[in-house]
Formats: sequence, structure tokens, C-alpha cells
Amino acid sequence: MSKEKKMVEEITSMEEDFAKWYTDVVQKAELMEYSSVRGCMVIQPYGYAIWENMVSILDKMFKDLGHQNVSMPLLIPESLLQKEKDHIEGFAPEVAWVTHGGSQKLQERLCIRPTSETLFCDHFSKKVHSWRDLPKLYNQWCSVVRWEKTTRPFLRSLEFHWQEGHTVHETPEEAMKETKQMLEVYAKFCENFLAIPVIKGQKTESEKFAGAEITYTIEALMHDGKALQSATSHYFGNKFSKAFDISFQNRNNENEYAYQTSWGSSTRMIGGIIMTHGDNRGLVLPPAIAPIQVIIIPVAMHKEGVLEKSEEVLKKLKSVCRVKIDKSDRSPGWKFAEYEMRGVPIRLEIGPKDIEKNQCVIVRRDNLEKIHVSLESITEVIPSLLKEIKDNMYAKALKRRNEMTYTAKNSAEFNQIAKEKSGLIEAPWCGSENCEKHVKENTSFTSRCISKEKPQAEDKCLCCDSTAKYRVYWAKAY
Amino acid sequence: MSKEKKMVEEITSMEEDFAKWYTDVVQKAELMEYSSVRGCMVIQPYGYAIWENMVSILDKMFKDLGHQNVSMPLLIPESLLQKEKDHIEGFAPEVAWVTHGGSQKLQERLCIRPTSETLFCDHFSKKVHSWRDLPKLYNQWCSVVRWEKTTRPFLRSLEFHWQEGHTVHETPEEAMKETKQMLEVYAKFCENFLAIPVIKGQKTESEKFAGAEITYTIEALMHDGKALQSATSHYFGNKFSKAFDISFQNRNNENEYAYQTSWGSSTRMIGGIIMTHGDNRGLVLPPAIAPIQVIIIPVAMHKEGVLEKSEEVLKKLKSVCRVKIDKSDRSPGWKFAEYEMRGVPIRLEIGPKDIEKNQCVIVRRDNLEKIHVSLESITEVIPSLLKEIKDNMYAKALKRRNEMTYTAKNSAEFNQIAKEKSGLIEAPWCGSENCEKHVKENTSFTSRCISKEKPQAEDKCLCCDSTAKYRVYWAKAY
Repeated sequence: MSKEKKMVEEITSMEEDFAKWYTDVVQKAELMEYSSVRGCMVIQPYGYAIWENMVSILDKMFKDLGHQNVSMPLLIPESLLQKEKDHIEGFAPEVAWVTHGGSQKLQERLCIRPTSETLFCDHFSKKVHSWRDLPKLYNQWCSVVRWEKTTRPFLRSLEFHWQEGHTVHETPEEAMKETKQMLEVYAKFCENFLAIPVIKGQKTESEKFAGAEITYTIEALMHDGKALQSATSHYFGNKFSKAFDISFQNRNNENEYAYQTSWGSSTRMIGGIIMTHGDNRGLVLPPAIAPIQVIIIPVAMHKEGVLEKSEEVLKKLKSVCRVKIDKSDRSPGWKFAEYEMRGVPIRLEIGPKDIEKNQCVIVRRDNLEKIHVSLESITEVIPSLLKEIKDNMYAKALKRRNEMTYTAKNSAEFNQIAKEKSGLIEAPWCGSENCEKHVKENTSFTSRCISKEKPQAEDKCLCCDSTAKYRVYWAKAY
Repeated sequence: MSKEKKMVEEITSMEEDFAKWYTDVVQKAELMEYSSVRGCMVIQPYGYAIWENMVSILDKMFKDLGHQNVSMPLLIPESLLQKEKDHIEGFAPEVAWVTHGGSQKLQERLCIRPTSETLFCDHFSKKVHSWRDLPKLYNQWCSVVRWEKTTRPFLRSLEFHWQEGHTVHETPEEAMKETKQMLEVYAKFCENFLAIPVIKGQKTESEKFAGAEITYTIEALMHDGKALQSATSHYFGNKFSKAFDISFQNRNNENEYAYQTSWGSSTRMIGGIIMTHGDNRGLVLPPAIAPIQVIIIPVAMHKEGVLEKSEEVLKKLKSVCRVKIDKSDRSPGWKFAEYEMRGVPIRLEIGPKDIEKNQCVIVRRDNLEKIHVSLESITEVIPSLLKEIKDNMYAKALKRRNEMTYTAKNSAEFNQIAKEKSGLIEAPWCGSENCEKHVKENTSFTSRCISKEKPQAEDKCLCCDSTAKYRVYWAKAY
């Protein structure tokens, strides 16, 4: 029992120090470990298994919509990176440069991809000639490198894993439809599988992707009131296709530049899962991506029949969920704390008394509720319970986000809320980049995305109190 | 028909120029395209889908044996790479060096991983303390970079995709068992799924992995008589663990260095598939990894009922195989040639006359045999046919390899065969590295692996004719 206490104590409480709570959780739950390379993580088996589950769900969603996976090179020649002006301005300050191959100095520097628009465009320019070659609906799972100054596990690292979709279309309408469709895919993934409610919207000019015409984002609200940009989808128009000469003969036999999109999501979402659902006992994992959905813990293992019955339940459950048994010589109390900390959605205890009654004890990680379940109905109860857990996690997260979302009508209201509260503030904005900049400097709040709600007559800019053009979500952000 | 002829003509025949045949096939079948970065490929959707199928089979084999996936950083600090002397000597000449992050010069150079022993060892040294922490059975899917001078698609490229397994054990016996077990996994994968027969054996000292105590390999024989090293499994003993201080308290409470292995296979195997099974019509893909196992081609599509029946068959077959239909406006002849070139194992034709008889025409890619099959039995026939195709592909490849494998008893015999034949030569060897070097310089044959057969009394070294210690397989190699 002392050991159990100690384990829980090892995690700093959220209220005491949220940042410390976060790094405690990622390390104690063995999601990651620091490496000898600044800002680069070792993703450990438990963390990587979460990522594999996320990849497998997303990959299927992409493929069901006709996307195909490809692999582009890791390296980009400097001249290629420079082809699109806004893109290079955005990324040049944060790329890693390869200057030598073996002992030889290279004639041209190569950067490690920070993102692969330039490589995809280079390829598309060779492959797209006619409208018959379109659309190209490509995706790539890989890692990219951005030379960040400060890094945090999963949230911001020099190297991170992600997927980047890159598509080419005949018409702007089709490209725009794709851009929005993929934003919906991300939102659906977050809400239905990660149980994370998100706000969808367009980024302001200053916050959009380097080289994009329009960037859409999904934003989630973390426990500490900060927003996490969780995925983005970009409409490029023909900006890149002009720079890279991706032109095709259209259905009227005219030469035309193609229309493009790109969209991405990353291991950053693991940070979002932790900071949306976690508590002071550690991780709380959404069932869809939990490496272990049910952990079976035999109680009084030495007693006759306990291990046998536990193995029998394990075997039964294997067909309906990801289940494991812990037969180690640790105490049940230690195991309870351990799997709570690791966020396993359901704990299933079996002891001699349960066996007498042909039942087991089930404890939900999301609300710590304890119920007795007949062993007869276990293969029906578990799947429906997993669904219930997900629904409850989503409802809880949504309730918290709603409680932490505020509305301001002018600068006085905005400043008041920004001073006293943490969370999202929906506030009117005149559309000037200067105002956006001032707000950031004065309050650390940045524009997250433009709201679908139009400003009312009484709405005044959160900064200059002049007429509002938009309503925008503002928050401190990761 | 002229178009069909033309497509086939576009592939250089094997007999005319094997190297050109190979690059024709990989490009025409759209497995890869060259990129703007020397020696780095774009793997196109069809090629990447093959790799995904390979990954999914291998990954399951690894996990079934208790291995877990992880992710190590892409970059290795120079000081870390230098920790194991033999390892750095082997790899330093061929790594890409990152010297700048953004506009800043780095204090220490970082290389892009050519392989990740040093990163895994660094991590293990932090995580392994007691025998209770062992074994660690890790695997990583990633890409690595080696600064090769000459490159060829899939066979040798600057960047390539692979998996690298890294394990840590309590005892040398357990590590050796793992090393051999993983060699068996690779052999089984090649033989049962890729239909490629392989020879298993130990590498000679000069051919083993930089830093390994023992390297095992599987070698396959290509159409042109050259060998392809298809996967390797290394026993490290405690060489790396001493260099990286991976020590643990053993069951006797003594401190001991741990025992390690690593093992890898890569996209190189795609080259092996092409050069083992391909023919002058193009690719021939083993069913287990073919992105499309059955292509349905409606004949006389405009005739009533043809499309409907084709779609009906498609729907039926979806539950038993990876199946597609080509409803494009190309001619059936063009389609036949196209999917032959792409190596699709089974072509299924449906025309008005077939529909009258409630049957379809099935053409096997491996032997071009044509049969009529009742539409009633199609879901039973196809799976068993796919198995038959695999078996036949394996048998054909094995027969060819056997026909191209020779035995020599001394230098005269060896030189004679090496001059006149291409293929594998099993020949006695005295064990001297000098002789190995001479053979390579004089004949371009290199030692592939040591044979399980012991030398006979009359066996003399293939180079110096002195007493033979081993029998070894020799071949020209990719």
C-alpha cells in the first residue's frame, strides 16, 4: 500500500504545476524518454503503440476517401526549397542543413524536410500533364525536423512524426472541397476516436501556413485553459503550382495551373490526449487508441482457481478488445495504481469471492466507478462499456471547454476576461494585423481561428474598439 | 492492339540488358520515380502499397514473438556515433552530416542515422538496470541514410526504408537464440510470402556488420545470376554494451554487461521480388504482397449486363481478396498488357458470352494459363488459385536457383565455373581474408555466406588450394 501511495505521489498535481504534471505523466507512463539529441524524443513502446493505433484509424479514413500513401525523400536541395517565396520565408529559419556527405563537402546544401510541399510539387510537375492525370490524392507518414528553440515532449520537438496529405485538382472548387473535407476528417477523428471536442475555423492571415492561401484549423482546449492547434488543412490555390510549373491540359484543351491542398496532423495530438483527459492519477486514454483497453488483475493469485479463471476471461475477451493480464508478483494495490496511471480504460479484478459468485469487479478509469459484472455477460458488457467511457470522456471535455469559453464584446470586456480567466475568448476583431499583434504582446492571447458567428452591431474590435469584421477565438496556445 | 504491343516493347528485354530491364520495370510499373535529390527515390502509390503489405506481414510476425515498436531520433551526435570503434569505422565514411540548425552553426555535428545501434544503446544504458528489465525486444520502422556513390532504385539508395530490431538479453545463449530466430523469421517471410527461396548462413569476418560478433544473412539468387543479400541478423555479444555501459544486476546480484542483437530488412527486398519473379512482360507479384490480387476487366462494356455482372463479381470477391475493376475507356487489350506489366496475379475477364454461360475467364500472371471458371464457385476458386500461384512461383524460382548453383572442389574448378557461368558457386575456402580478397579482385565473386556443409578431404581452397576450413557460397552480388 505504501508503494501504491508513493507512485501516485510521484506525479506532481495539475493544480500545483501543470507543466510539471505533464512531463511527469509522459515519463512515468513511459510514453517517451529524452534522448542525447536536444529536442528529439525516444518514443517508448507504450507511447508508440498509442501512435500506431491513431495512425491505423486515420490511415483508413484517408484511404476510404481515395487517398494513396507514397514516400518522398527526407532531404530537400536548397534551390528547391527556395522556389516558393512565402514558403521559404516561413521555413528557412528553422531547418537543419546537411552540408557534408561522408568526408565530402556538398556542392549544394540539403535541408532535412520541415514539411514536403516542395518535394511533392517537384514530383507533381513531372507527373501531371492532362486533366486525366488528376486528381492526385497522396499522403505520406514520416517524420520532419524543425529547429525549435524550446521543446516539450510531443507538443514541440525538433523531430516529430506526422502525416502530410498533398493533393492536386483540376478546379479551385474541387481543391477547396478537399481542403474542407480533410478538416472534417480531422474533427471527426478527434471527436469520435480521441473524445476531444474541437473548434473548426479559418486561421487569420498572420497565422496561416507559409505559402497557403487559406488555412483551416481544429483547436482543442486543454485542462489548463490553453489551446492546442491539433491539425490543419490548407488551400493553396495555384500558388505552388505556378512556382513549380504544375500545369495540365484541361478539358477545353487549354493549359492551366493545377489547384492544390495539403493537410497534416502529428504526434502533437498525443499531447492533446494527455492534457484533455488526464488527471492527478495520470493518463486517461480514449478506448479507441488505448494500447490496453482492459487489464485483468487476479486478486489472491495463489488461491485455487484464480489464475485459471483469469486466463479464461482473458481468452474470452481477446475477441472483443485489446486485453492483457498482469500475473506479476507485484501486489494488487500496486497494479491498480500502475494501470490507472497508464490510463487503461477498464480494470477487471477477479478474486476467490468473485469466482464463487461467477462475477468480476470492473473499475472504469474515466470516473473510477466500480461495478460487479457476471462472467456470463462479459463479452457484451465490455464493448458497450468502452463506448460509454468514450462518450463520457467526450461529454466531460466538452462541458469543461464550454465552461472555459467566454464571450467579449469590446476591448474592455476582453481585457477583463483575459486578466482573470484562462480559456477561450470569442471576441470581435477589426481585421487589422496590428491589433492582433498588440493583443498578443499585451495578453499572450493569439487568434486561434475565425468564428462562424458574424459580428453584431454592438461588437467592437477587442483591441482598437473600431467596427468589427470578424468574431475570432482567442487563447493562450501551445 | 498497336498500343498494347507498344507498351510491352517499352520494356527492354532481360536478355538484351538486364539492368535496363530492371529500371524500365520499376518506372513503367510506377513503383518509383527519381527525385531532385541524388540517389533518393519517390516511392509511388503502387510501389508503396507493396511495401505496406510487406510491413504489415513482417510487423505481425515480430509482434507475435513479443517485439514492440519504438521510435528513436533521426539524428546522432558525432560523439555518440564514435563510442563503438568498429561501428564508427564502418559507417563514418558514408554518413550525411548536419552542421547547421537554421542560421546557427552547431557546436557538435549530428549525422543522419545510417543505422541506430548507437541510439538504442544510449537509451538501453538508461533503462536497463536489473535482470527484471530484460529482455528488451524492440523494433523500429524508419528510413536511414547512407552516402552511397552509385545508387539503383530499391537496391542501393542514399535513403531507404527499413526496420531495425534491437534486443537486449541476460545471457549470451538467449541473445544467440534471438539472432537465429529472427533469421528464421526473415527466411520464412521470403519463402512463404514473397515466394523467394533463400540460403541462410553466417557471413565471413570481412563481410559481417560493423560492430557485430557474428552476422547471419539470407541470400537470394536473381534472374541474372547475381545474389541479393535480403536481410541480416547480428549477434553483438557484449561488445556494444561495454562501449555504452549497458550493465545490469543479474540473478546472482552481480553486475554484468548485457547481450545484444540487431536485425534488419528493407525496401531492398522489393528489388529482390522484381528480379526473382519478373519477366519480359514486366512485374510478377507474389499474391501476399500484391496491391491488387485480382483485376476485373469487363469485355464489351457497352453490351447489356456486362458492367452489372462485373460489379457483382467485384462485390463478391471483396471479402476474399484485394480486387479492383478497370472500367476506364481503354481497350481490353491495353488493359491486359497494363496489368500484366504491373504483375497483378490474376486477371478476370467478363464478356457477354461468359455471362451467357455464367462463367468468367481467368488468366494467371505466373504462367499465363487461361481457364474458364463458373461464377458460382468464384469465391472458392480465387483464394486457392492465389495459393497455387505462390507455390508455383516459389517452385520456379527454386528450380532456377538450383540450376544456377554450382559446386567447385578447388581453384581450377572454381575459376572455370566463375568464367563460364553466372550464379552461386559453393566452394571450399581456407579461411584467409587474403584469399577472399584475391577472389573478389580476380572474379568479382564475393563470399555470400558459409555453407552448413563441412569440407571433404579432397576440398582445397578456391584460391590458394591449401586445406579448406569451410565451404562457402560465392556469387557476384548486388
